[in-house]
Amino acid sequence: MNKYKRYERLAAIVKIFNDNPNTLINLEYFMNLFGIAKSTASEDIDILKDVIEKFNFGKLITVPGAGGGIKYLSISNIDSYRSFVKEMCEKLKDASRIIPGGFLYTADLIYSPSVVSKIGEILSYPFQEKNIDAVVTVETKGIPIAMMCARALNVPLVIIRKDSRVTEGSFVSINYVSGSQRHIRSMSLSRRSLKKGSKVLLIDDFMKAGGTIRGMMELMEEFDAEVVGAGVMISTQKPEEKLVNNYISIFVLKNMDEEKNIIDIEISDWIMGE
Amino acid sequence: MNKYKRYERLAAIVKIFNDNPNTLINLEYFMNLFGIAKSTASEDIDILKDVIEKFNFGKLITVPGAGGGIKYLSISNIDSYRSFVKEMCEKLKDASRIIPGGFLYTADLIYSPSVVSKIGEILSYPFQEKNIDAVVTVETKGIPIAMMCARALNVPLVIIRKDSRVTEGSFVSINYVSGSQRHIRSMSLSRRSLKKGSKVLLIDDFMKAGGTIRGMMELMEEFDAEVVGAGVMISTQKPEEKLVNNYISIFVLKNMDEEKNIIDIEISDWIMGE
Repeated sequence: MNKYKRYERLAAIVKIFNDNPNTLINLEYFMNLFGIAKSTASEDIDILKDVIEKFNFGKLITVPGAGGGIKYLSISNIDSYRSFVKEMCEKLKDASRIIPGGFLYTADLIYSPSVVSKIGEILSYPFQEKNIDAVVTVETKGIPIAMMCARALNVPLVIIRKDSRVTEGSFVSINYVSGSQRHIRSMSLSRRSLKKGSKVLLIDDFMKAGGTIRGMMELMEEFDAEVVGAGVMISTQKPEEKLVNNYISIFVLKNMDEEKNIIDIEISDWIMGE
Repeated sequence: MNKYKRYERLAAIVKIFNDNPNTLINLEYFMNLFGIAKSTASEDIDILKDVIEKFNFGKLITVPGAGGGIKYLSISNIDSYRSFVKEMCEKLKDASRIIPGGFLYTADLIYSPSVVSKIGEILSYPFQEKNIDAVVTVETKGIPIAMMCARALNVPLVIIRKDSRVTEGSFVSINYVSGSQRHIRSMSLSRRSLKKGSKVLLIDDFMKAGGTIRGMMELMEEFDAEVVGAGVMISTQKPEEKLVNNYISIFVLKNMDEEKNIIDIEISDWIMGE
């Protein structure tokens, strides 16, 4: 007789996978944890696959072979996030978010755990099976989003500093031109923060012309990193010609009228399935 | 007959609670989600309470009354984290972490999603039932830890900036003396980031004399906030006289000898149950 009932095992397995997305866990782990036979563990996983699909909770993938196992992807299709994104878009239209100087107040959203974990899942979704080695961001406002992307992909986060206050040993700095304001700025990353030749995903909260992302790409060259893609929560419609091509955003800010108190923002086509 | 089997419902409930720690969810929510009677939903929760306790996954708490419901705390006792903390302590003793200038390299740990989510759970543990309104940190390295504390407590994160690059409207700045280096520095927080009278938990990655935490406390006074406590991943043994009293740390760095290549670090007593 088994020590744990099936529903106990299934509940425990859900918790373990949910805490460790995109992580390969082998059947032996569950066999030892519950003291069950391989066939029983296998059945448990099959049952759970159906449950997870039924509730749109992502998906379980079986990787065959000696080094194989099962891994959980927290998002299996973008459709299940559509109502969340629509709700967020309505919140972003609130004109009280307009900050003098042409800024948009988003801290209440991007620093809210329940919101930012979903944002992280959405932005990591197209990269779930691209074997990303690290999520890279630049301080400060993009860090929570990038952290949640890193969590969904189960890879380390790398934080580029905007100054030289790097207390992590030798570092590489580059100068870049902030696209919208045409200022010269610099960003730095310590040598040991990122292995040479890593495949990286660049994440930030906001993108206008793309100068910051472009700067990050240049810095990545210094680490022989391959930039697989870039993702931001909000990109602006103008300027239409961006300094980077290969990026995704969840929202497109079309216009922000300080005088008329209007924020015109839309959901990106790839999320709406258009 | 019920649309979903019990094990399907339990698996789904675990996922929902795990994604929403410290959040009150009422029975009606599950009754509607699964199309089940109140008695069935109630039974499901009772079964799940046992499962969660059995596996040391935290605990489910029932809040009675009209506005009541069930909430999930991701950590029910510190004992279950002890082996993780011990393992981390061994990693922190690796002498290659010594950075010239007396710094300790921790980015590989505090930016790793699986590590930082546990660190966040541990630091939030003593404050789980203190009705915290917000977790407050100062950029940059403490942000991932603070984000995971905020997630465990289900409250917003507030990020204090170290300069005046605040693009979130009017802000309050203070000057403070960095305890260890005796430099005058400043930190700023936008007015709308934190409601007046909030109960806050201060979080950072590292604390020497406590000058930064002390600065945060002063800034909190400007927002009429009540500082319920402060938590850091690592505090140093010296100076023994800190600028703040009311703080917890997971590790105590007793000594770091650049010449002899030795890091002497210990786990705090409150975690070891001593």
